[in-house]
Amino acid sequence: MKLYYANASAKEGRIVVLGLPYDRTVSFAPGTRYGPEFIRRCSDNIEDYSPYQNKSLNDVKIYDAGDVYFETPDWIIESRKALDTFRKDQIVIVLGGEHTVTLPGITYCKEQYGEFSVIHFDAHCDLRDEYLGEKICHATVMRRVSEVIGLENLYQFAIRSGTREELSMNKNLYKFSVFEHLPNVLSAINKPVYISIDVDVLDPGIMPAVGTPEPGGISYKELIDSLILLENKRIIGADIVEYNPLAASPWASGCTVAEVLRELILLCAAQHGKR
Amino acid sequence: MKLYYANASAKEGRIVVLGLPYDRTVSFAPGTRYGPEFIRRCSDNIEDYSPYQNKSLNDVKIYDAGDVYFETPDWIIESRKALDTFRKDQIVIVLGGEHTVTLPGITYCKEQYGEFSVIHFDAHCDLRDEYLGEKICHATVMRRVSEVIGLENLYQFAIRSGTREELSMNKNLYKFSVFEHLPNVLSAINKPVYISIDVDVLDPGIMPAVGTPEPGGISYKELIDSLILLENKRIIGADIVEYNPLAASPWASGCTVAEVLRELILLCAAQHGKR
Amino acid sequence: MKLYYANASAKEGRIVVLGLPYDRTVSFAPGTRYGPEFIRRCSDNIEDYSPYQNKSLNDVKIYDAGDVYFETPDWIIESRKALDTFRKDQIVIVLGGEHTVTLPGITYCKEQYGEFSVIHFDAHCDLRDEYLGEKICHATVMRRVSEVIGLENLYQFAIRSGTREELSMNKNLYKFSVFEHLPNVLSAINKPVYISIDVDVLDPGIMPAVGTPEPGGISYKELIDSLILLENKRIIGADIVEYNPLAASPWASGCTVAEVLRELILLCAAQHGKR
Amino acid sequence: MKLYYANASAKEGRIVVLGLPYDRTVSFAPGTRYGPEFIRRCSDNIEDYSPYQNKSLNDVKIYDAGDVYFETPDWIIESRKALDTFRKDQIVIVLGGEHTVTLPGITYCKEQYGEFSVIHFDAHCDLRDEYLGEKICHATVMRRVSEVIGLENLYQFAIRSGTREELSMNKNLYKFSVFEHLPNVLSAINKPVYISIDVDVLDPGIMPAVGTPEPGGISYKELIDSLILLENKRIIGADIVEYNPLAASPWASGCTVAEVLRELILLCAAQHGKR
Amino acid sequence: MKLYYANASAKEGRIVVLGLPYDRTVSFAPGTRYGPEFIRRCSDNIEDYSPYQNKSLNDVKIYDAGDVYFETPDWIIESRKALDTFRKDQIVIVLGGEHTVTLPGITYCKEQYGEFSVIHFDAHCDLRDEYLGEKICHATVMRRVSEVIGLENLYQFAIRSGTREELSMNKNLYKFSVFEHLPNVLSAINKPVYISIDVDVLDPGIMPAVGTPEPGGISYKELIDSLILLENKRIIGADIVEYNPLAASPWASGCTVAEVLRELILLCAAQHGKR
Amino acid sequence: MKLYYANASAKEGRIVVLGLPYDRTVSFAPGTRYGPEFIRRCSDNIEDYSPYQNKSLNDVKIYDAGDVYFETPDWIIESRKALDTFRKDQIVIVLGGEHTVTLPGITYCKEQYGEFSVIHFDAHCDLRDEYLGEKICHATVMRRVSEVIGLENLYQFAIRSGTREELSMNKNLYKFSVFEHLPNVLSAINKPVYISIDVDVLDPGIMPAVGTPEPGGISYKELIDSLILLENKRIIGADIVEYNPLAASPWASGCTVAEVLRELILLCAAQHGKR
Repeated sequence: MKLYYANASAKEGRIVVLGLPYDRTVSFAPGTRYGPEFIRRCSDNIEDYSPYQNKSLNDVKIYDAGDVYFETPDWIIESRKALDTFRKDQIVIVLGGEHTVTLPGITYCKEQYGEFSVIHFDAHCDLRDEYLGEKICHATVMRRVSEVIGLENLYQFAIRSGTREELSMNKNLYKFSVFEHLPNVLSAINKPVYISIDVDVLDPGIMPAVGTPEPGGISYKELIDSLILLENKRIIGADIVEYNPLAASPWASGCTVAEVLRELILLCAAQHGKR
Repeated sequence: MKLYYANASAKEGRIVVLGLPYDRTVSFAPGTRYGPEFIRRCSDNIEDYSPYQNKSLNDVKIYDAGDVYFETPDWIIESRKALDTFRKDQIVIVLGGEHTVTLPGITYCKEQYGEFSVIHFDAHCDLRDEYLGEKICHATVMRRVSEVIGLENLYQFAIRSGTREELSMNKNLYKFSVFEHLPNVLSAINKPVYISIDVDVLDPGIMPAVGTPEPGGISYKELIDSLILLENKRIIGADIVEYNPLAASPWASGCTVAEVLRELILLCAAQHGKR
Repeated sequence: MKLYYANASAKEGRIVVLGLPYDRTVSFAPGTRYGPEFIRRCSDNIEDYSPYQNKSLNDVKIYDAGDVYFETPDWIIESRKALDTFRKDQIVIVLGGEHTVTLPGITYCKEQYGEFSVIHFDAHCDLRDEYLGEKICHATVMRRVSEVIGLENLYQFAIRSGTREELSMNKNLYKFSVFEHLPNVLSAINKPVYISIDVDVLDPGIMPAVGTPEPGGISYKELIDSLILLENKRIIGADIVEYNPLAASPWASGCTVAEVLRELILLCAAQHGKR
Repeated sequence: MKLYYANASAKEGRIVVLGLPYDRTVSFAPGTRYGPEFIRRCSDNIEDYSPYQNKSLNDVKIYDAGDVYFETPDWIIESRKALDTFRKDQIVIVLGGEHTVTLPGITYCKEQYGEFSVIHFDAHCDLRDEYLGEKICHATVMRRVSEVIGLENLYQFAIRSGTREELSMNKNLYKFSVFEHLPNVLSAINKPVYISIDVDVLDPGIMPAVGTPEPGGISYKELIDSLILLENKRIIGADIVEYNPLAASPWASGCTVAEVLRELILLCAAQHGKR
Repeated sequence: MKLYYANASAKEGRIVVLGLPYDRTVSFAPGTRYGPEFIRRCSDNIEDYSPYQNKSLNDVKIYDAGDVYFETPDWIIESRKALDTFRKDQIVIVLGGEHTVTLPGITYCKEQYGEFSVIHFDAHCDLRDEYLGEKICHATVMRRVSEVIGLENLYQFAIRSGTREELSMNKNLYKFSVFEHLPNVLSAINKPVYISIDVDVLDPGIMPAVGTPEPGGISYKELIDSLILLENKRIIGADIVEYNPLAASPWASGCTVAEVLRELILLCAAQHGKR
Repeated sequence: MKLYYANASAKEGRIVVLGLPYDRTVSFAPGTRYGPEFIRRCSDNIEDYSPYQNKSLNDVKIYDAGDVYFETPDWIIESRKALDTFRKDQIVIVLGGEHTVTLPGITYCKEQYGEFSVIHFDAHCDLRDEYLGEKICHATVMRRVSEVIGLENLYQFAIRSGTREELSMNKNLYKFSVFEHLPNVLSAINKPVYISIDVDVLDPGIMPAVGTPEPGGISYKELIDSLILLENKRIIGADIVEYNPLAASPWASGCTVAEVLRELILLCAAQHGKR
């Protein structure tokens, strides 16, 4: 199953959507690994036209690269292999999977673009150095990201859960509200931007289908308005992670994720002119 | 099962509640066809007294006309037959079923009252001329309605999904917010009013149990406050559609729909004096 | 299973968490009786550190007293027996169960502390004198509480459902909003305070897993901000009731309840200095 | 909603179907109380024609008396009131609700017919004298029945759960298999017969939607074949109880119950000639 | 997502698996339309090796042709277009969708092979001439099939639901048991064979995820043993229909369907030598 | 929560029940890790008296040791620590968790008892040497067990899924049926016996709540009868694994597991005399 609006070949596509359905659960019982599949399915319910950006997906060349299918523990290597098939004039949007799948996209962008900033929307800091004995996992991923791009380039928004240490280690970490802080932050950023959206940044009321729900999240409108604020930035990559279609009734949450994807594609498409 | 507060006979009732559990799915697997049944059941959880309008259902003569049971494709004819058994001094509130069930109520009101306006609360325009080869379906119903009443009499609120064409064809279509626009709109309307509420106008956070969830909807308070704004208008009919008790956990959504029904009955009851 | 952050013995604990998983349903089919168990489980997903109060559960001595297991109809007596094992310098937070479990905690506090006020967050008045032939049930519990503490000491917030009589009998009952009224109310209270939180006070969008969902509730932020307003009061007891993990998908709702519990513990812990 | 094949008025009906949706849970959270409603709904999926008995429901005069709606604890009195409106030439089939609803039907039959036998299909003995402090409940109902009709008239089949005492107190109690014992038992019975079917007599594999699932039950075929063995007996009443549409996915279980109801109606209809 | 064991191109594949996810429900709310997708997903849980036939899927050239995506009502024409791309030396196994999807495969085989027999496993006759005003639907499909191949070539097994007329119109219709009748029937068939498996032929205990559950079905073992009996016949096509992943918990049912597919592929693969 | 029939201290208990809720999924989304908890809860629905063995749990000294709570990847070491606190005259029954949790119990028994046989009931061989890059996981666990006890001491029953290699490497592996082979096998075993029950050995019809459902399993009766055949053997340990309360509706499956546990405890209790 492909995104119904995917209208371009691997060669022609300017926006590439790639599923990395990794969730470390090797047994049959499912989780975020079914994220990309359900996002595609729920996209059937989403119009091509955005009343927020007044643009249509039909005017964008979109290639749906399908999912990387993980059969061995070397999932990072396999993900990079998939990413390395794309060109620098193509913007890749990764669909998770757990948050850890942000990592290969970040190292890929590092090699392609050098210095850049990461705009991170999340309920959780994900800045632990280690969690349950593991260095690379959903609770440490942003620490690993910061080691690739430099902590000073990591901007975190709407955070509302973390240890005392996590919450104080990054001066660019903003609690609770996005909109209040984002305009100022953006005016100070002049590097290219990578956007990482952990969908649990949204309130669990509207996004219950996540693995680690945390009350007090932002509204859908706040997220979309925040994304639109980014439209003058040069966006080089993005991901949408942690949607777990099995953690709650999947349809309403999945349609919300599918619409965030639409807005993100339209946002990234507008970037091409800037290069 | 009847609404627990239905206290009047077909003859005595001033407000008539009629279920049109039509959802075009002729097989056993269910959907909005179970809407009326679940709304009645969830009504058990709703008090007769409204703290919003400070009125009680016990002071209104309410007749629960049950559901029209559809066994043939001629459901519009059967629905009209049911509607035609009521008198002009009775206000009928239809419970769907999919949005298409608005249609027989509109033609019924057209014959009974002549010119009137439709106030339409919905996430979707429903203004396509045809959808998947069909002229009469949930995605075209408001186009058909506009052909009966005149497009200039169709006022659409809180719309947040549609094609580019749909979103631009009706000058009385208002995106996103209801409350911002409704007072001005109402001051210009002097015809009788029919109210059509597709419950997906509400945010999927509070109303996940719908067939086509669309993020970014209005709050319950905005819907109720909007309804109350209508209290000086002459209301001649209304419907509540698209509640699908099988699309998500039904209880919380169902109680919300049941309470919208309470508010709608109390609103309609206040209309009788105006005639 | 115990709360993962419970770090003290029965003797050392200053905050005691006690489950009263009573729901009157003697058969196997479950309901709020599984509340305490799911709250503990969902607590695994909640950090010890509160970004709202900037405090950690690790700095509080917390004893998880487990659940009272009800095998006979004499559940009030058994609950009191459990409560009577604690000391006056320990603050007990009861986890329900249905709202009726507030009652033993109230009589316990009455004997321990004499006069006190109850701050009650709820969608429903719960002030009926009798319901379906019963004097002690979830719909009458606040009437019974008022008979113990005096109606003038019962402050009710965010109420949005009740009979006409219930809604007018208590001059300290405030409809819809909490935050608008609470500061004024608190400035007039100089007695110790007991806090009773029926989680259906929250909007069913964020808290669908309750037995009697009622639309139009308050947000998580409004509840937490309201609790924090109480930090200068001397708190002598508290409860969190009516979470029903079987009424909807339990995880997102359960994590919200678990985080309310964290905030409540931290709030109560701050009280000890005041005595 | 009525059984789609109900074709007769209260006066003309020879078989009366009456719902007693009692489950002692006075709160909103549901259970077997929704049994009758779901049985009617699932009946839509069941043909009128039985390939087991080679008869059609269309040839039987069936009246669907709806449900008794319980608002007070006096449910036994209200149930008897409903039963007392029928005539002795009408056979009433009660749909539960929990097993306790067998009781009013038994006392009704006692007054109408005097001596009779009860054929009881169940996983559980239900012979306790008291359970959790109650004399009349789902775990004691057959003890109460035995006090009305005499223990020697109570024949219990397929029992696979009970205390040591329960399992040894009734010489007419048969464990595990029905078919092995029923022919012999029936040849010794010459009184009229009442049939009580607790659907948990079926294996939970085919009937998971019950309140107290117990592995090792009988197959659907064994139940139907057993019922057909009764066709020479004079049947004076029957019930189908303990179907809980909320304890598991309701549809498959509900269709099975609906088909048991069809077979039971056809069986009872054949009795009329014998009187 | 493709079947993990699909190892051949469209050109090389000897067995072709084609999804026809048609279920006539044009709205978003899902049903058997998600059958093919869930069957593929559940296939991940099924080994390539069959302990029943002692053969491995790895030894068969299998092409997964994906799903036909239906956007217009002309689904039969679109399905035939898809079928017409295959060669006569390729055996197509159709995955439904509702039972109606059998029809294009039958007309395709008629044109390719001329006379043939259909072995039909189902709970229902599906022999109505019309149902709810429609000539082509899940309740009439076998009547339409009989008009293509001749009623005398339609062999129906394990039927346990139908009208009196349906149950008596086909002399090759066998009720309840398969295994008792199949050997005799097969010995009299010397035409090529098409196999149509409506998965509700299985008992709803093991296959609850169907649209129209009917108690008293056959066991998994009886179905597999029956299929193996067919191994000397020349099989020219097959389908597996009516699995509805949304009608009950999908995993256990889906794994059963996925394993039936494995057995069917291995059975069809053995046919190639016979031509 | 403890097993309601646990009546002895750690010191007095002769049968010890220990939960090892390990499922390798370190994120919040749950699976077999909730097995022990749900088994205890469902045990509330199971009588202490077994009509199969005619014995009561009340006559056995049972200690519920609770669950080992895993916070680090060193779960095998932690499990062994828990096991090493028990004495040789105590029989430990482990509740999983995934099948991997069998391993620490096996090494514990090896040290305590030296040579012994393992009776393994399962749908799957679990004899791979490696799976998805891991040596110790649910698909390799019996290979690891065989390395501890010797392959010749591993008796596998009711196997119906595996690779060609797995299915042929163990001469003591019996496909499909248990009862047919077990008596002969047992007569040849004169070592002590450890019993490992993967509950997916049961048909998914009666046990859908497992991670890897496989059709064609044995009945509950066949399992219980098989266990009873073991009553003359000296049993030194046992486990019940792979019940996943989140893979399907948990109650009916959970009650079945809880009753298997009852039978297993009674069986083990009878062993003490033999030592």
